[in-house]
Amino acid sequence: MPHIDVHNDLPGIRGLMAFRPETAEPLGALAEVLLRDNEGLTRAERELIATRVSYLNDCFYCHNSHGELACVYLDGDRDLVDQVRKDYQHAEISGKMKALLNIAGKVQQSGKAVQPEDIARARREGATDRDIHDTVLIAAAFCLFNRYVDGLGATTPTDLSTYPPRARQVAERGYGSHIYSSPQPAR
Amino acid sequence: MPHIDVHNDLPGIRGLMAFRPETAEPLGALAEVLLRDNEGLTRAERELIATRVSYLNDCFYCHNSHGELACVYLDGDRDLVDQVRKDYQHAEISGKMKALLNIAGKVQQSGKAVQPEDIARARREGATDRDIHDTVLIAAAFCLFNRYVDGLGATTPTDLSTYPPRARQVAERGYGSHIYSSPQPAR
Repeated sequence: MPHIDVHNDLPGIRGLMAFRPETAEPLGALAEVLLRDNEGLTRAERELIATRVSYLNDCFYCHNSHGELACVYLDGDRDLVDQVRKDYQHAEISGKMKALLNIAGKVQQSGKAVQPEDIARARREGATDRDIHDTVLIAAAFCLFNRYVDGLGATTPTDLSTYPPRARQVAERGYGSHIYSSPQPAR
Repeated sequence: MPHIDVHNDLPGIRGLMAFRPETAEPLGALAEVLLRDNEGLTRAERELIATRVSYLNDCFYCHNSHGELACVYLDGDRDLVDQVRKDYQHAEISGKMKALLNIAGKVQQSGKAVQPEDIARARREGATDRDIHDTVLIAAAFCLFNRYVDGLGATTPTDLSTYPPRARQVAERGYGSHIYSSPQPAR
């Protein structure tokens, strides 16, 4: 049960967003731009960065929600998602993605942990300024989302079978207001 | 110099926002709701929470920018702002604010660090569910903003006299698009 009475039964961040729609709107709009933009990084890559950072922050709700989103975009390759989550250095992803996940992991610790050599490595692997910008901001944004969810003790479904249907719905409809207004989809 | 070429000379988060207006808009809208709302917590209290979290994250640009904003709303009481920044337990603020700053400090570490007794203490001191929600989200948001600024190595003015004129401008005009489009005000 959440630390505050959110007056609804929606899981995770959705229950918090329904409690305070005034802040839900910019939070949803931020997720929409950062995770659904297809320029530079793909949607799968964006969701993988979100998943890895949420895993590092030990946010069960977020790393499972966004891991399932990545899985949708990767045609169901859950093993790859799980490897990126836990041991991305040995995952079958590009050198560019490894360099960006390194930066994301630094940002998870502290902005100051990012060093010029981390940026130089990402550039050598083909990352643009926009890719680096988006990686840092996705990682920083999940340091917000993870703390919002766990800091208010949001309801976290432990039944993993509830995540895939919701992920398919978000993949189709995006991060708009249905996030905090629509009921859980049928499995 | 920032880690990426932002194509402008604006300081701190402003330079990053100008580089990527698509993400700047929801970030500004989030700050506007969270820091300028006057229901429950005052603007001064909201900026004090932002200042304290930014100080804990060692983000020089943010704790000085928002410390100056708090100072504007507190009729220039810079000593109080500095005490909240460094040692809020002994500051002349309400028991409610001390309990909320305790929660904010936990969120800065991790969402999971917030315990039911932290929430219970805030309630005993008169905090509403909305106050607790906003405190957690302000603290989480500054874990984003601080990492965004330092993770991209944003330009950070070290001359403290540049912060007050800008703070007065933000107090007057809010966190809209002038943040990343207008030049630095004259001192």
